Amino acid sequence: MKNISITKSRRLRETTFSSRVEKQGVKSYTVYNHMLLPTGFSSPEEEYEHLKKNVQIWDVSVQREIEISGKDASKLVQLMTCRDLSKSKKGSCYYAPLVDVDGMIINDPLIYKLEENLWRICIADSDVLLFAKGISSAQNLNVKIFETNIDTLAVQGPKSFKIMEKVFGSKINELKFFKFDFYDFNNRKYLISRSGYSKQGGFEIHTENAKAGQELYDYFFTIGQDFNLRAGCPNHIERIEGGLLSYGNDMDIGDNPLECGFDQYVNLDSNIFFLGKDSLKKIKETGVKKRLMGVKIEGSSIQLTKSLSLLSEDKLIGELRSAAYSPKYKKIVGIAMINKDYCNLKQKFEIKLDEKIMKGEICSLPIE
Amino acid sequence: MKNISITKSRRLRETTFSSRVEKQGVKSYTVYNHMLLPTGFSSPEEEYEHLKKNVQIWDVSVQREIEISGKDASKLVQLMTCRDLSKSKKGSCYYAPLVDVDGMIINDPLIYKLEENLWRICIADSDVLLFAKGISSAQNLNVKIFETNIDTLAVQGPKSFKIMEKVFGSKINELKFFKFDFYDFNNRKYLISRSGYSKQGGFEIHTENAKAGQELYDYFFTIGQDFNLRAGCPNHIERIEGGLLSYGNDMDIGDNPLECGFDQYVNLDSNIFFLGKDSLKKIKETGVKKRLMGVKIEGSSIQLTKSLSLLSEDKLIGELRSAAYSPKYKKIVGIAMINKDYCNLKQKFEIKLDEKIMKGEICSLPIE
Repeated sequence: MKNISITKSRRLRETTFSSRVEKQGVKSYTVYNHMLLPTGFSSPEEEYEHLKKNVQIWDVSVQREIEISGKDASKLVQLMTCRDLSKSKKGSCYYAPLVDVDGMIINDPLIYKLEENLWRICIADSDVLLFAKGISSAQNLNVKIFETNIDTLAVQGPKSFKIMEKVFGSKINELKFFKFDFYDFNNRKYLISRSGYSKQGGFEIHTENAKAGQELYDYFFTIGQDFNLRAGCPNHIERIEGGLLSYGNDMDIGDNPLECGFDQYVNLDSNIFFLGKDSLKKIKETGVKKRLMGVKIEGSSIQLTKSLSLLSEDKLIGELRSAAYSPKYKKIVGIAMINKDYCNLKQKFEIKLDEKIMKGEICSLPIE
Repeated sequence: MKNISITKSRRLRETTFSSRVEKQGVKSYTVYNHMLLPTGFSSPEEEYEHLKKNVQIWDVSVQREIEISGKDASKLVQLMTCRDLSKSKKGSCYYAPLVDVDGMIINDPLIYKLEENLWRICIADSDVLLFAKGISSAQNLNVKIFETNIDTLAVQGPKSFKIMEKVFGSKINELKFFKFDFYDFNNRKYLISRSGYSKQGGFEIHTENAKAGQELYDYFFTIGQDFNLRAGCPNHIERIEGGLLSYGNDMDIGDNPLECGFDQYVNLDSNIFFLGKDSLKKIKETGVKKRLMGVKIEGSSIQLTKSLSLLSEDKLIGELRSAAYSPKYKKIVGIAMINKDYCNLKQKFEIKLDEKIMKGEICSLPIE
């Protein structure tokens, strides 16, 4: 594929760390929540191997944080998600699909509960701020809603535990998965969660002060050599293998959470009220017509820019939405939305790419 | 500035015309409404000169169209904008700032009235779909809201009238500014508006069928030579000179319409109800604290990636938000948000860029 450059402007917002990331030699960007997200420093394969053995620091500030506070904050947050948050606890993160009145997914954030009526929604790529504002102003809710200026660093990889201990002290390794707490560096408190968009383990550091955040970033690199630390970014291969979904790629407003394998986060039998509840009840009753599945395809490279049709005996059985060559499986792995009748492991299919026919089969997600 | 490439994926949607645009040699993209927008084919200066003398065809499909229909459609559209649409007419386009409950701008679309309760909102870069869905579901409005699959071609430049006549017949030139109607090509009707993001005159063709749209695009190039037609894109220099604002660059959710010179579209004395009405009344009473103005700066090149501080005797008096070198004025021209006390024509200021101090002065907008 031809290299086409990105035109920067104020509208494609830089992060606290963009200047650092460019010094580290970022080669490509995508845009996510109107902000720059690094997508590569060397090659995806090299970064994949490094991530699985070492530790990387990622600028994931694009995971913008929408803060909702006030008397009706918990009511508003629950209105937007099909996941029952009535028993949620302070200090926990909740992966929670947000759905519209038709039960369709409008985002799949990680929701942080800071206090009883204080939440931060770390969003995927869509303007949740406007959805929340629309609901609250139409219902006259007592809430304050805004996008914080928090920029986030992910520290990911098997050596993340050791390097984080060196920076924030050994207590950091008592933090459990999808929990968060506050930790000191240079006399400043950081909200740190045990989370991140990889399956290699790690943390996310939420920075509020730009200068202090940059000093923290630089400090990581002064001690990084012992841990083989590198600047990195969410790795396309690793996240597909691990079945970590990407909103806009794998699912969007044309899909509902039952089609995406989020059944455990669709709590229709509890007493909670959310906007899409009636619609999702009907969908569940009728049964879904398609499902997200993993796929493996014979081939050594692919760069997907849009959906590709999956054919079985010339019949359309689904569409491929994300794909990458996997060094682990020595095949292309991908995520596809498959028509219900064909959602079987080892179901064969063909795709046509650049006039070439490639053969594949359906597998589980995460890929196995 | 170093060239950094854009990483494509399904999430950064291609348009009906992306393959054509790439054959025409597009060199750079931006992302707008989760979609690819071409930003250059040769140099901005060359494209500027060509646009002012000839005709260009632009892929502006990123101006996504949100369709709102149903019994409460007009009510919902009015809830979102401070412009009085109560006397609006079928066949007209309305430039209308959308505001939240605090009176802050969340988008500045062109709104098309197709029927009494059928509207299409051609949006700037934010998810108006989610704002509209939030309001309508919270108020249980009787509306249908969705993003259409319409992809738009802008035909812009002084020769646009002649080439459009050749394609769609002479009746097209009876169409008045900000009106739209339906015109035939190859036995298919196209909604065409006399509109576009330049001051050089032209039209926007709204295409619904991909194959037919591509044939139309190709047809323009089979007859284009006589008109010196080229593929182009919104020109940064021309739009700044002309005072055409860009949401996310020149203004955003931190600004209200009275600060952006939209006074004529803020109808506080009429009987209409919109969400931000009380807030904007208070803002008008108190008076605004800043205003968008034009600026001219001594210099021969600039590439802005974020706001730049404007200083007068070391005091911060505003921020530069967009800027480009203008061959017409032989200076850098720009759009800046200026503190009220300094909103005077010819007010001097300095900016610091890459350790260099540049001198400028405030001027009117459009630039004069």
